[in-house]
Amino acid sequence: MKPRQQGFFLVLEGIDGAGKSSLIQPLADTGRRLGMEVCTTREPGGTPLAEQIRALLLDPVAPTWSAETELLLLFAARAQHLQQRIRPAVAQGKLVISERFSASSYAYQGSGLGVDAGLIATLERRVLQNFQPDLVIILDLPVEQARQRLNCRGGTPDRYQCRPSGFAEAVRQGYLQLAQGNGGRGGQQYRVVDASRDKARVSAELCSILEEAL
Amino acid sequence: MKPRQQGFFLVLEGIDGAGKSSLIQPLADTGRRLGMEVCTTREPGGTPLAEQIRALLLDPVAPTWSAETELLLLFAARAQHLQQRIRPAVAQGKLVISERFSASSYAYQGSGLGVDAGLIATLERRVLQNFQPDLVIILDLPVEQARQRLNCRGGTPDRYQCRPSGFAEAVRQGYLQLAQGNGGRGGQQYRVVDASRDKARVSAELCSILEEAL
Repeated sequence: MKPRQQGFFLVLEGIDGAGKSSLIQPLADTGRRLGMEVCTTREPGGTPLAEQIRALLLDPVAPTWSAETELLLLFAARAQHLQQRIRPAVAQGKLVISERFSASSYAYQGSGLGVDAGLIATLERRVLQNFQPDLVIILDLPVEQARQRLNCRGGTPDRYQCRPSGFAEAVRQGYLQLAQGNGGRGGQQYRVVDASRDKARVSAELCSILEEAL
Repeated sequence: MKPRQQGFFLVLEGIDGAGKSSLIQPLADTGRRLGMEVCTTREPGGTPLAEQIRALLLDPVAPTWSAETELLLLFAARAQHLQQRIRPAVAQGKLVISERFSASSYAYQGSGLGVDAGLIATLERRVLQNFQPDLVIILDLPVEQARQRLNCRGGTPDRYQCRPSGFAEAVRQGYLQLAQGNGGRGGQQYRVVDASRDKARVSAELCSILEEAL
């Protein structure tokens, strides 16, 4: 199988506990089986500066800040991530799979924290030059079930996980609205997948969606 | 003398080596002599999160990033600084004197690094709700003279000071253009002061400008 000329940028989205991290690997395996070089990454993060910003953002004892401040920090990290990691890999024909990208800002800072979607769109346009993923898969499940999974994982909850459950519900609804109303957003494609099922079934569905898209 | 009902927000601007830090103190003394409570601060910084962002930005060995990323980090810090420090102090009737504010972004990231001024104006409007200083004093001097002063100070040069002298010249010209063309910028007032003279004369002129403005 000869290498594809064109790369592909796939984003996995969803509330905390939806299973994003554990589903990256089977997707990467699918890409490799189809003959692609694969680069997996995550947001916020993916470059040294962006990982420093991630540490600031997730620190549960950090000082409070406004939703707009949080949005700007995330887009600063995203701009780096896009420029230094995602764009070069896609240009080399790779399959890039990222845990989170701009849709997270619409869901978390927009729907969750009330930042005006117009500001987010302005940053997408002027800072990311409207670069859009080829495919965004939203892992959807009830907030209560996500919370139970997080509890089973243990560890110290991060800043986002410390927010009340109404926040997670608003984020979930934000994702679903994004998927319903994406007509105007630069050809970006959303697929919503029921992530409440067992991991093997969800994984099989994701891999078949990716195979079809490639 | 009874306390003023209304606070006042004064910003000192200028290229590195113009003398901003050392001129804050005489200005603060003038404010106190006129019966005001004074709060002095600086950018990037002024709050714990903003100081962490400052440390990232000034680190001379940090990874490179795009001009837009730098702008977003600075506005994230500025939004915090405004919300947690500047606005509350002005609301209490204080004189707030800050070393740098938004004009620095127009001069450094705009004129110096080529970021579109429209993006900076959008951030001013949507993140700072167009909050503007009552007075901005620009300390102007030739780049070569500023560089000599920095050399005399010693210490490790920060990230900005490591940039070539063409950068400092572009920043200087950016400040001067800002002062000439501020008609449309929300009633903000600029005064340009010749900072190439000895410190006592510059200090006397600044204090007299402030006294007149209060």
